[in-house]
Amino acid sequence: MSEVPPISGTGMIIDGKALASEVEAETKVRVDELAALGGRPGLATIIVGDNPASAMYVRIKHSACDRVGIRSENVNLPEGAGIDEILETIRGLNEREDVSGILLQLPLPRELDPARAMAAIDPAKDVDGFHPMNMGSLLAGAEGLVPCTPKGIIWALERLGVDLEGKEAVIVGHSNVVGKPLAAMMLNRNATVSVCHVFTKDLASHTRKAEVLVVAAGVPGLIRGDMVRPGAYVFDVGINRVGGRTVGDVQFDEVIGVAAAVTPVPGGVGPLTVSILMSQTAKAAEMKMKMKEG
Amino acid sequence: MSEVPPISGTGMIIDGKALASEVEAETKVRVDELAALGGRPGLATIIVGDNPASAMYVRIKHSACDRVGIRSENVNLPEGAGIDEILETIRGLNEREDVSGILLQLPLPRELDPARAMAAIDPAKDVDGFHPMNMGSLLAGAEGLVPCTPKGIIWALERLGVDLEGKEAVIVGHSNVVGKPLAAMMLNRNATVSVCHVFTKDLASHTRKAEVLVVAAGVPGLIRGDMVRPGAYVFDVGINRVGGRTVGDVQFDEVIGVAAAVTPVPGGVGPLTVSILMSQTAKAAEMKMKMKEG
Repeated sequence: MSEVPPISGTGMIIDGKALASEVEAETKVRVDELAALGGRPGLATIIVGDNPASAMYVRIKHSACDRVGIRSENVNLPEGAGIDEILETIRGLNEREDVSGILLQLPLPRELDPARAMAAIDPAKDVDGFHPMNMGSLLAGAEGLVPCTPKGIIWALERLGVDLEGKEAVIVGHSNVVGKPLAAMMLNRNATVSVCHVFTKDLASHTRKAEVLVVAAGVPGLIRGDMVRPGAYVFDVGINRVGGRTVGDVQFDEVIGVAAAVTPVPGGVGPLTVSILMSQTAKAAEMKMKMKEG
Repeated sequence: MSEVPPISGTGMIIDGKALASEVEAETKVRVDELAALGGRPGLATIIVGDNPASAMYVRIKHSACDRVGIRSENVNLPEGAGIDEILETIRGLNEREDVSGILLQLPLPRELDPARAMAAIDPAKDVDGFHPMNMGSLLAGAEGLVPCTPKGIIWALERLGVDLEGKEAVIVGHSNVVGKPLAAMMLNRNATVSVCHVFTKDLASHTRKAEVLVVAAGVPGLIRGDMVRPGAYVFDVGINRVGGRTVGDVQFDEVIGVAAAVTPVPGGVGPLTVSILMSQTAKAAEMKMKMKEG
């Protein structure tokens, strides 16, 4: 990551791995402090079934835990586990002193209701930020534990020196995981926020006005160069497998020549998200320690 | 309210009182059913101090209760009441079987934290929809008890036959009470949503694209005729006292000639909001009865 401020149209690549390393380094200091006080943070992940992608994502998260000194463990429930078994597992982890954060890896198999499971996680251990209490505090402007991908984008913008206040921000995608919580976080920072999605009639008319553009649509190459405002900061949340390659929602080769800065896929938003999960697990442990003291 | 579909530019006045009467009539039927089953809904309001505006708003709400058959009561705490006294009052009302809805009238005096007080209300009795659990469920697309003004606007659009899916919706104002929850509700209905506010650089460039425009800025006459798209549906949430008159945020005389339909001030969004409070108090009572049965 260059220390030189980016100039419009120079097309800086936003190095997600480098940013993630910064977050991890910061987090490691906090984890060491917590450990010195006898409260080393612990992350418990839950996988239901044997989805290979879920197993891979959880492995990546555990590796990050190892790097920053967070204790980690995984509970693997069988493919046929019912909602009661999941809720029981969560309740057990809620009770445990040595578990600071609980992460239920999605998707769940079959008809299992992820909302019901996530609402059972102690909000103070909800390091993914999807519990209604945490989502509601976020919407009301009191951000505690929040969804990791939006938080990573906000963090990167701060790190890049982009002040959101008064900026035209456009988000493509209105999911519960990225689009809607990110919109709330950007409004909390006084950006003008537009949220587009598959039902939007004229997508380009919105994206061309964006000083900050975040694309989380799951459509390979959706955003072409002529849809981007010169000098924009572009975050590509898409992870799509196309012809054996992993590509984003942004036509990187075209957009890099127009934008001020773009995240690549892979190596952009992905690693940043994992590092924020570490930071939030430390935060959950810090909050617990503060409550004990207070 | 005319039954004829509005034509672009005819400038229909959206009669908030007539719409509110419809909501109240619907609600009265539900309240009568609940009462017949022995569960007449009750609304408890709390006023702290002696703000005359608060007293007036609460009177209006109690009158609406009388019209639909909801039992109502008010707890008036002294101006000097502390947060503990407020929390204790709320806890007492949380426990009471005959109280279906609890409404803490804002603003609170002095430095009292409204967020802390509102978070103490049982989410199942939170008829104002401001509890983090309810705001979070709303953001995640599972709308239970939600803020009344946004809900009233959504209800009016449905009643007017305006399908939000794919519509360009613009909200001016990003408060916790109107702008942010309404943005979430419109996204849940697949509108393309832009939220502007005092930090927005070029407000007119946004408002001119709006097929549905909601203004909740608290700035008298902010929206002029040339800032509105012909054929738009315009909701004016503003209530401002100017020279002894109550006016909205929209220059009604100008906008009525451009828009398909506009809410007046007074007599627009205000009465609709109160009627939705009645409907939500009935809903809270219905949910309680369902839980008992289930």
